[in-house]
Amino acid sequence: MPLDLTFDDAARDQLLSDGTAGPLVRRSILPGGVRLLTETDRSVRSATVGLWLPVGSRDETPAHAGSTHALEHLLFKGTDRRSALDIATAFDEVGGESNAVTAKEHTLYHGRVRSADLPLALDVLTDMVTSSTLAPSALETEREVILEELAMAQDDPTDSGYEEFLAQVLGPDTPMGRPVGGTVESVSALTDADVRAHFSEHYRSGNLVVTAVGDLDHDAVAAQLTDRLAAGGWSLDESALPFARRPALERTVPTEGTTRGSASAVPTHRLVRPLEQTHIYLGGPSIGATSEDRHAMNVLMAILGGGMSSRLFQHIREERGLVYTVYSFSAAYRDAGLFGLYAACRPSRAEQVVEMMGAELEAMRDGGVTDDEMRRALGQITGALALGLEDTASRMGRLGSLELVQGRYSTVDEAVARMASVSAEDVRDLADRLAGSFTTRVDVGPEPG
Amino acid sequence: MPLDLTFDDAARDQLLSDGTAGPLVRRSILPGGVRLLTETDRSVRSATVGLWLPVGSRDETPAHAGSTHALEHLLFKGTDRRSALDIATAFDEVGGESNAVTAKEHTLYHGRVRSADLPLALDVLTDMVTSSTLAPSALETEREVILEELAMAQDDPTDSGYEEFLAQVLGPDTPMGRPVGGTVESVSALTDADVRAHFSEHYRSGNLVVTAVGDLDHDAVAAQLTDRLAAGGWSLDESALPFARRPALERTVPTEGTTRGSASAVPTHRLVRPLEQTHIYLGGPSIGATSEDRHAMNVLMAILGGGMSSRLFQHIREERGLVYTVYSFSAAYRDAGLFGLYAACRPSRAEQVVEMMGAELEAMRDGGVTDDEMRRALGQITGALALGLEDTASRMGRLGSLELVQGRYSTVDEAVARMASVSAEDVRDLADRLAGSFTTRVDVGPEPG
Repeated sequence: MPLDLTFDDAARDQLLSDGTAGPLVRRSILPGGVRLLTETDRSVRSATVGLWLPVGSRDETPAHAGSTHALEHLLFKGTDRRSALDIATAFDEVGGESNAVTAKEHTLYHGRVRSADLPLALDVLTDMVTSSTLAPSALETEREVILEELAMAQDDPTDSGYEEFLAQVLGPDTPMGRPVGGTVESVSALTDADVRAHFSEHYRSGNLVVTAVGDLDHDAVAAQLTDRLAAGGWSLDESALPFARRPALERTVPTEGTTRGSASAVPTHRLVRPLEQTHIYLGGPSIGATSEDRHAMNVLMAILGGGMSSRLFQHIREERGLVYTVYSFSAAYRDAGLFGLYAACRPSRAEQVVEMMGAELEAMRDGGVTDDEMRRALGQITGALALGLEDTASRMGRLGSLELVQGRYSTVDEAVARMASVSAEDVRDLADRLAGSFTTRVDVGPEPG
Repeated sequence: MPLDLTFDDAARDQLLSDGTAGPLVRRSILPGGVRLLTETDRSVRSATVGLWLPVGSRDETPAHAGSTHALEHLLFKGTDRRSALDIATAFDEVGGESNAVTAKEHTLYHGRVRSADLPLALDVLTDMVTSSTLAPSALETEREVILEELAMAQDDPTDSGYEEFLAQVLGPDTPMGRPVGGTVESVSALTDADVRAHFSEHYRSGNLVVTAVGDLDHDAVAAQLTDRLAAGGWSLDESALPFARRPALERTVPTEGTTRGSASAVPTHRLVRPLEQTHIYLGGPSIGATSEDRHAMNVLMAILGGGMSSRLFQHIREERGLVYTVYSFSAAYRDAGLFGLYAACRPSRAEQVVEMMGAELEAMRDGGVTDDEMRRALGQITGALALGLEDTASRMGRLGSLELVQGRYSTVDEAVARMASVSAEDVRDLADRLAGSFTTRVDVGPEPG
């Protein structure tokens, strides 16, 4: 039976899964257009809740680069009701975990607690999101913490290499290509007014998505959420309804002006560091998050470089001993995406490893994949989905991603069915496109001898 | 009711928890002295299994340093029945996860799969542990992979800094202080005979501990385990019983010859790297894994540097903005242990951060801890235990650690009760001892300006 689980923003309440063949999943549009999605799982004694704002570094102007991330930090520095210590203590004293993530297209505040403490977690997180004091003195202290965070990322060859890779593939001067946290220069120049402007523009009920998974009651979460947002002073007018889903932006990746080619033909961007190993990122632009080819991409990535039995791992590590780490990856945004190959090896081996990585994708283009590889990839993806979704935090993240990016719910069974519909020919076609789509190589390591 | 759950090596079967007030936990001595501990949890659809050998880098002679870790790598390279690709494929094609860990006092091979695949996981892991081909050509290839792994660790300032810290605190030329993976020199010199000798001496039924947690049946696991070990050619003679628990070795930490003092008094070992940040490890020797003071240590660590509400985090990051990361830690072995403080900051701030870290421990010695801090620490540890033990992998690890190190089972409730019995005075007494026990500071970063 085909499922039609497209989110209905005109419906107050939508039952996305009735709990008979999986978890109970519900979606509600609350006053003010707040969207709440929950998955009730009575077999656990914990719950994870996340508050999502669909705003990230791609929404920044260059002059305010890093303001999204700085705001995320400032929300932990105190509210009208709570000091920074109160916020930290609230989660610590119940043994919970809380954190936040700033990304290119969203900001997420999340907490994982024993289920009895879920009201507490929701109270603290809504307080942070609605009622942060955003004190100027807090920005001055936190600016230094953020500069330490940027220094840490700069020192990490995989962090700085991947950031440079993203910049080169997506365009270094585009909203998508700029680093999420900003730069030392932009963070140093951020003003109180920048951060407040960011907060005023984006932090409001019509933008808020809340996802929660675990031992919880949907209606109780909905009631508390509405109560706490009202207490925080947010407008919950009915005029905010219906919520207008954010359209995909026009393409921000400057693919027209970029030369795409084979792996061996791309120029190398080099971050020179006196390291024992050279870290190599090799790839180019690819499909976005809603492309129908994303299922073929998952299968291709599993076969090429997704596990210990993958071609990259077997040929480059197991048979030749050239690397400790090698894998392939893809990333997808609303209207942009990329694919890549990563390896780290001693510098004298770098050219050989690059050649072998490129050759593996070309071999897949020329020779396709075997039925046995297709069968194994499907088993791998299916099993990993089942194991990966055992914890409530992963499922909270999946619900948010479905709401923010896909615009529709899919059960795990449906996800597996889509993967199973991918053919070996689909994978080969995609390999054909990728093998000629390399634009970028980033090496982090010593100057080549 | 006081519990007495000391492991009984004369008992074929021991019921450690009957499943009425928690999970069903059983321990059996199988033929050949193999010890099996399982925890049955029917609320999940997965299982994690681990095969433990109580042998680690501390059991190596300097000439063979790294042989434990090399053997662990070689076990993935093929058996009489399976190629390296077969082993990798077995877990990948069911979407499972498998890996291995070499530590100072044990080696662990583990896998996490959907419960229907548990027999497969057990079959592969027992095959690896009993029937590895240990082909000389495999050592030659894998030696290069291990050298890449050592290069990677060398490049990571926290890996290399912590390794140097352990060496200095535990004694750089002692079995405990030497690095787990060996050195470039010792790994380059390892022979086939070294690795085979290690295997012959340690990999046998009387040493093997198997722990498994999840949706499983103890008797079925026991039967399959015995069958597979016999098929792998291991002797399962009754003469191997009863198992003689390995005694704690005499103390290997040369504490007598080391000057202990306050944080500000210890000399700095420096690993010079051109980084943006300096990584600082500061600490000294402390209690071992079976010390009665370990509960007070847990409480002290929570208050001092265990979370966002801890003194180190609040005072050094939140109030002063001097760091992004700061925490305290302890590590405990059978007959040795250590405590430490870690921070990373831009080099100009290093001395100030070191001074503040040392001062926090001295403040705890001089002023003790508050009732509020004690209450929060207990809540933090209790909640974190509950949340941390939701996944089967953590519980598999806990069972193994109880068997290999503690020699007795304890329920989570019992662990909480012991923590609750710690008094503020206990914590202050421990702070008093630690504040004067600093022996080592390791800085990884640029030469001080």
